[in-house]
Amino acid sequence: MQGAPSIQVLLDELERMPGVGPKSAQRIAYWLLNGERAQAERLAEAIVQVKDAVHFCPVCFNYAEGNLCGICASDKRDRSQICVVGEPRDIPPIERTGAYHGLYHVLGGALNPLEGITPDRLHIAELMARLGGNEVQEVVLATNPNVEGETTASYLARLIRPLGCKVTRLASGLPVGGDLEFADEATLGRAIETRREF
Amino acid sequence: MQGAPSIQVLLDELERMPGVGPKSAQRIAYWLLNGERAQAERLAEAIVQVKDAVHFCPVCFNYAEGNLCGICASDKRDRSQICVVGEPRDIPPIERTGAYHGLYHVLGGALNPLEGITPDRLHIAELMARLGGNEVQEVVLATNPNVEGETTASYLARLIRPLGCKVTRLASGLPVGGDLEFADEATLGRAIETRREF
Repeated sequence: MQGAPSIQVLLDELERMPGVGPKSAQRIAYWLLNGERAQAERLAEAIVQVKDAVHFCPVCFNYAEGNLCGICASDKRDRSQICVVGEPRDIPPIERTGAYHGLYHVLGGALNPLEGITPDRLHIAELMARLGGNEVQEVVLATNPNVEGETTASYLARLIRPLGCKVTRLASGLPVGGDLEFADEATLGRAIETRREF
Repeated sequence: MQGAPSIQVLLDELERMPGVGPKSAQRIAYWLLNGERAQAERLAEAIVQVKDAVHFCPVCFNYAEGNLCGICASDKRDRSQICVVGEPRDIPPIERTGAYHGLYHVLGGALNPLEGITPDRLHIAELMARLGGNEVQEVVLATNPNVEGETTASYLARLIRPLGCKVTRLASGLPVGGDLEFADEATLGRAIETRREF
């Protein structure tokens, strides 16, 4: 690659991408060098285009391209349920399950007072405003099953319950298809605590 | 990601990259969405720039940005040695070893008559032309240690030896730091055949 500064510039930029190390960056660079110019242009265009076209949905703070995000704008969603998640990236895995048909609300993070993430730094006021009418019957707390996510869920549950809204939390437990032998203690402990009648 | 076609376009383009599956593409897309616009622009620019700036070195067929590639243009390389490789991507790993200080010649592939890769499809005539003078003392055949690479190496050796040039081949054998137990039979067999006095 010596004597080709634009290859080095490309490698440096590619290596900034998450999950791309020096070897992957080199593989991608060679793929671009061997490929059609149109291919490289389409990729470059898509990268810039996404920054121009995408903003946050003013209702749920998911990524949106029109006025509202596709889920808020859809007339096929159950408007009596709001699933609360930390980040927009948490929505696609839930959507892929096909098990949820309601709306979402993206907090933009999780409570972490030590790092200065207090309730006013998250989209909590906006969530409470959405619960003002009588349309929403259930709030599904789908924050991550870690310390910050649990803290956030507890905080929101205390805030929402007085409104008469049903508040639920995603179940924690053993992964489906997983092996008891390889389960970590925290997960197995939670699975025992929240065991259900069979 | 619903309702955001430009995210889907980006995901499609990212997934074309080698080693990038749907999950990595999504991770990269969210990283771009969360990041600075300038970051996305630098990446896009680097991708297009590399296609504009990079061509093949007219001497060795490595990637080059100036007239010659950095190695051919350097006055620090030993011009009495030419290392023959299949593709430009084979050069950086050899350079990283620091064990070779000569020039290179990129064939642009390996002989494979069944797939129509005959000697005239590779940069073999250009290699022979470089051996015309008396400058080159040794040709190191560093084609891949697989069927096509070995075939190519044998073919080149027969062609080059009559010129009075020393012809060498990269050693095959056990990986350094590797475990005998996990060596494949072909590698271990080669290591026994080419064992050296200790």
